[in-house]
Amino acid sequence: MSEHLRAKLTRRTFLQTTATAGSGLAAASLLGAERAAAEGPDLKPESVVLFQGDSITDAGRDKKGGSPNDAAGLGRGYPFLLGGALLADYPEKRLTVYNRGISGNKVPDLAARWQQDAIDLEPAILSILIGVNDIWHKLGGHYSGTVADYETGYRELLQRSLKELPGARIVVCEPFVLRCGAVNESWFPEFDQRRAVARKLAEELRLDFVPFQSMFDAAARLARPAYWAGDGVHPTLAGHALMTKTWREVVGI
Amino acid sequence: MSEHLRAKLTRRTFLQTTATAGSGLAAASLLGAERAAAEGPDLKPESVVLFQGDSITDAGRDKKGGSPNDAAGLGRGYPFLLGGALLADYPEKRLTVYNRGISGNKVPDLAARWQQDAIDLEPAILSILIGVNDIWHKLGGHYSGTVADYETGYRELLQRSLKELPGARIVVCEPFVLRCGAVNESWFPEFDQRRAVARKLAEELRLDFVPFQSMFDAAARLARPAYWAGDGVHPTLAGHALMTKTWREVVGI
Repeated sequence: MSEHLRAKLTRRTFLQTTATAGSGLAAASLLGAERAAAEGPDLKPESVVLFQGDSITDAGRDKKGGSPNDAAGLGRGYPFLLGGALLADYPEKRLTVYNRGISGNKVPDLAARWQQDAIDLEPAILSILIGVNDIWHKLGGHYSGTVADYETGYRELLQRSLKELPGARIVVCEPFVLRCGAVNESWFPEFDQRRAVARKLAEELRLDFVPFQSMFDAAARLARPAYWAGDGVHPTLAGHALMTKTWREVVGI
Repeated sequence: MSEHLRAKLTRRTFLQTTATAGSGLAAASLLGAERAAAEGPDLKPESVVLFQGDSITDAGRDKKGGSPNDAAGLGRGYPFLLGGALLADYPEKRLTVYNRGISGNKVPDLAARWQQDAIDLEPAILSILIGVNDIWHKLGGHYSGTVADYETGYRELLQRSLKELPGARIVVCEPFVLRCGAVNESWFPEFDQRRAVARKLAEELRLDFVPFQSMFDAAARLARPAYWAGDGVHPTLAGHALMTKTWREVVGI
């Protein structure tokens, strides 16, 4: 088999694997795509799209004011890439895209600022990626929250969002790590338990679920883990761009 | 006709128009897509992709060192978005992506730094967007280069690139403006003459040509010009994301 052909086949397997990750592993993840196929993109005119989370979402955004949709205020990560793609693809919708991720945040940090940084923005699409600091800070001795605390706190946050934002589409993004950098065996099995919580909550509450861990597991078979996330936690540009593709496939917009 | 249906039809027209802009208006623009269809993506392993130009390309990139493929070093514009998309889509190629755009540059500025900032990087794909300052600085009284100077200087730059970089794929991006902000009637017809030069050179030298002006003209029928470029010259995130889509369609990777 030629190098060229092998590369093509590997590539096809990769694409199929990531597609499977987006549709097969979690029943919840199908909701978005099915809805989009049935109804067209679920975006009313002037919808607000909000990205919430920790440093992965924050991605170095400029927090000193700036209007939504502004490049600097969206950081250099998947919210910037997704914001750009949605603004370019749906100009007639006049979307407003916010990034409100803050580095270092855990579930209780989101809860403390949820009114002003989520509910008050009245998002039509609310995408949340939270969980890696809930374990990372615990491993570092700066936090004592358990897996059960993560589940309880995250469920409360999602239930509150469902109640306060009727009609909003809530997207639960799976926390993920790559096996490199700061990530070692001490993270497991607890990290996997926390990932399972995020999926369970999405299924329980019938929310969209973006399986980032399966996506990165497949990607790490094509390029070394650090290609996707140098320290195992914070994605590179390549990692953020891959997240962007998978998010769009799952959410269907 | 319902609002929903009208939006859908408008949208379809927009997509068809941008697709046409990418394939119909310039024979040169077909070269890339045809080659890609015939041979697959024209990307050898470890290829270097280089974006060259002025502030539109620069887009606030961090020039203090940093490695290629690094998010900050790629700015917040189309080179960042394209870099991310290519790095995510072709992990097995181990691409190296550079942004070497510098704000305020005109053709003679590129020529002065072409050896170290283009030839020495040995790009397999060299994408160039230059021309708006050649007229803007002239309108402001800071430059006296004519349309003929633009043509002569740009042709020399491209011929030098073809000679020094055999096998490289050179992508000529059409200079563009939106009718808002700093752009008024004083720009015309000279701006159109300069755009025509870029297209003519691409056709003459059989290079890929990305028709950004036709793309933005179509886009400005769906959202006001400032949605795509606040000052008429520098694209918003939405504008950069639209450029990214069209570049990929034309170049076929």
